[in-house]
Amino acid sequence: MKAELITIGDEILIGQIIDTNSAWMGQQLNLHGIEVYQVTSVHDNHNHIMKAIADAERNADLVLITGGLGPTKDDITKNTLCEYFGMELVYFPEVFEHVQSLLSSRNVTINQLNRDQAMLPASCTILHNSVGTASGMWFERNGTIFVSMPGVPFEMEAIMTEEVFPRLIKLGILESIVHKTILTIGLPESMLAEKIEKWESALPDFIKLAYLPSALSVRLRLSAYGTDQEMLETEINKQVEDLLTIIPENVFGFDDENMALVIGRMLEKASQTLAVAESCTGGNIAHFITSNSGSSAYFKGGVIAYSNEIKTKLLDVPAEMIKNYGAVSQQVAEAMAIGAQKALNADYSISTTGIAGPDGGTSEKPVGTVWIAVAGPSGVKSEKFIFRHNRERNIIRSTQTALNLLRNLILTDNKV
Amino acid sequence: MKAELITIGDEILIGQIIDTNSAWMGQQLNLHGIEVYQVTSVHDNHNHIMKAIADAERNADLVLITGGLGPTKDDITKNTLCEYFGMELVYFPEVFEHVQSLLSSRNVTINQLNRDQAMLPASCTILHNSVGTASGMWFERNGTIFVSMPGVPFEMEAIMTEEVFPRLIKLGILESIVHKTILTIGLPESMLAEKIEKWESALPDFIKLAYLPSALSVRLRLSAYGTDQEMLETEINKQVEDLLTIIPENVFGFDDENMALVIGRMLEKASQTLAVAESCTGGNIAHFITSNSGSSAYFKGGVIAYSNEIKTKLLDVPAEMIKNYGAVSQQVAEAMAIGAQKALNADYSISTTGIAGPDGGTSEKPVGTVWIAVAGPSGVKSEKFIFRHNRERNIIRSTQTALNLLRNLILTDNKV
Repeated sequence: MKAELITIGDEILIGQIIDTNSAWMGQQLNLHGIEVYQVTSVHDNHNHIMKAIADAERNADLVLITGGLGPTKDDITKNTLCEYFGMELVYFPEVFEHVQSLLSSRNVTINQLNRDQAMLPASCTILHNSVGTASGMWFERNGTIFVSMPGVPFEMEAIMTEEVFPRLIKLGILESIVHKTILTIGLPESMLAEKIEKWESALPDFIKLAYLPSALSVRLRLSAYGTDQEMLETEINKQVEDLLTIIPENVFGFDDENMALVIGRMLEKASQTLAVAESCTGGNIAHFITSNSGSSAYFKGGVIAYSNEIKTKLLDVPAEMIKNYGAVSQQVAEAMAIGAQKALNADYSISTTGIAGPDGGTSEKPVGTVWIAVAGPSGVKSEKFIFRHNRERNIIRSTQTALNLLRNLILTDNKV
Repeated sequence: MKAELITIGDEILIGQIIDTNSAWMGQQLNLHGIEVYQVTSVHDNHNHIMKAIADAERNADLVLITGGLGPTKDDITKNTLCEYFGMELVYFPEVFEHVQSLLSSRNVTINQLNRDQAMLPASCTILHNSVGTASGMWFERNGTIFVSMPGVPFEMEAIMTEEVFPRLIKLGILESIVHKTILTIGLPESMLAEKIEKWESALPDFIKLAYLPSALSVRLRLSAYGTDQEMLETEINKQVEDLLTIIPENVFGFDDENMALVIGRMLEKASQTLAVAESCTGGNIAHFITSNSGSSAYFKGGVIAYSNEIKTKLLDVPAEMIKNYGAVSQQVAEAMAIGAQKALNADYSISTTGIAGPDGGTSEKPVGTVWIAVAGPSGVKSEKFIFRHNRERNIIRSTQTALNLLRNLILTDNKV
């Protein structure tokens, strides 16, 4: 089965919002074995929406449409679908009741715009929106299924999970595709490609490899296509095992894992704890760690020491040291890491001090200069980096690099 | 002039990466007065890429293509473009020199895959990639311009900024579209729509209004279309002024501003400082604040008090209080805020303590329960919220709500 996604909204085309919906839908469809053939983003414009749906109908068996279902004037998807399928809007009392109860639980007074949300195409199947007022709609024509959903991500996700997938599974729509993503760090794409060239060339025809570089890592995605799900999984796992013997130190995780999660798992297993002392990363390392549920088991917290005064007061970094070497120095980074370890009574700690930019750089310490230190039971280690990017990217690169230094320290400690 | 964007890569369609490139390009083109008609995401597949380019050629005067230019086997865009335009690949020595110097500055050894990056379509215009090894390519045919760029966001952005826009400006391609986005908080979309209904209905025909709800705010985007840029700006500003008289308390900023930036500006103006004490938000408030450059002028730092021990040790929250009322309580939230104000010697502070989920909820304190306190020269205020979302969204909503409470406190303090 082939799917196409249509995301509707001027705000997508002028880049005011990033279209995360199609990524989410692509991922979920894929996990269910449905291949997304194309994603098309179009304007809140009647003719453009009509054309996009007609184009998709020619290629796909399943057309998922998001956006343009809100209660306001710029939302025209519902009326356009009525025209496309030759239906009238009719009043659905059960939808009105749902809108009413949802809004009253939020202490919002119902108005005419909300009432209009109970007007829906006569012969479509209404998909219940448990978390919002805009219903989803399911249409079928000549073997193609069309689903229209609101553009608010968590509403779309609820309708997909609670309504669309259960219906698709009932209809027996399932193909076998198996993916495995290998997360690597420490080698740029071309060096990685060279190192694994022989392995890549020897992959069987039904397994495809893709390189996905990002600010956080170079990910390798293996996709196996076929009818025998079990065989595909066995074969992919075998290939991954072979790969691990070639680049054991560069692989830090798989699939939806992230560096902070992998570290958390190591710490939890060893009943050890972590603290952070962040200057230039400004809380982003702690945010990466605490984005993983269950992190309270090993993460004690940290100090965001944005000003020198706080470095001294809460992390016990000597004011004299800051004066002599500068806040962005090896000495201060190491003192911050040791200070956090002590102040928060943690086994391990991470510290960062640097110049995220765009201001604050000097010829000696340009924007992007970052000292990172990690401390553990075996002592403290530090390293200087120069990330020559914008503020946002410098913060992300510093965060991921700091976490990787900690990962290496923990691995070394566990080997001893 | 009409543009279309084509983003190439299996990783987009299976949702492994989010297509931020098209959002960035849409935004930048729009600022330059070029309307993006459609965004299409397609597979790393020869026929599919050929079809997408041909479709775009029919609709658009400018076709921007990203992705599939890396040095590895799954990158087929370059060869596909050669076929589309009937060109051969030839060797460009100046491109090879650039690749060589870039890689040697990164201490990467050059290999055959890198060498192949100097093989480019014979009659295209090479667009220099100052930050990467994959060159951009510019083609023209029958009045349509085609640009192919790598999919790595910062490489695409560099080529757009340094090569594509200067060329488009030289060619005199500029239309007048003026946008203004108004950031609101405190009213759900339908209540907001009702409140500004009269104003909305009275907008002149050449101004369009769009509602853009997100986890952070409901944004109102006004777009004016016409030939007289100055008149459009004057008219939009007049409409915004009118709107401000209708919902003065709900508007917190404009365009690309964010709540933390707006707060920072108020603090900087008053020479006041801020500290945070974060439990359930785990560093995300500090991250939001420090994402704005120049935040060191007013942000002193904070304590991430993820464990109770740290709440007591660094923020002086009595252990007895945590025991009696629980860590998620009004008492503890207020004590954390006051503790941070003192420990970090700041004028204002924010604290959060809650259950982000998915675990840790009870019937009395379900997942999503958050106590937020803000402290300032005039004292401390606190409020309880129940965000019924997933972990990620609970953290974002808590962050934005906490920042808005602080904004209100500062506004009240300044009125007195």
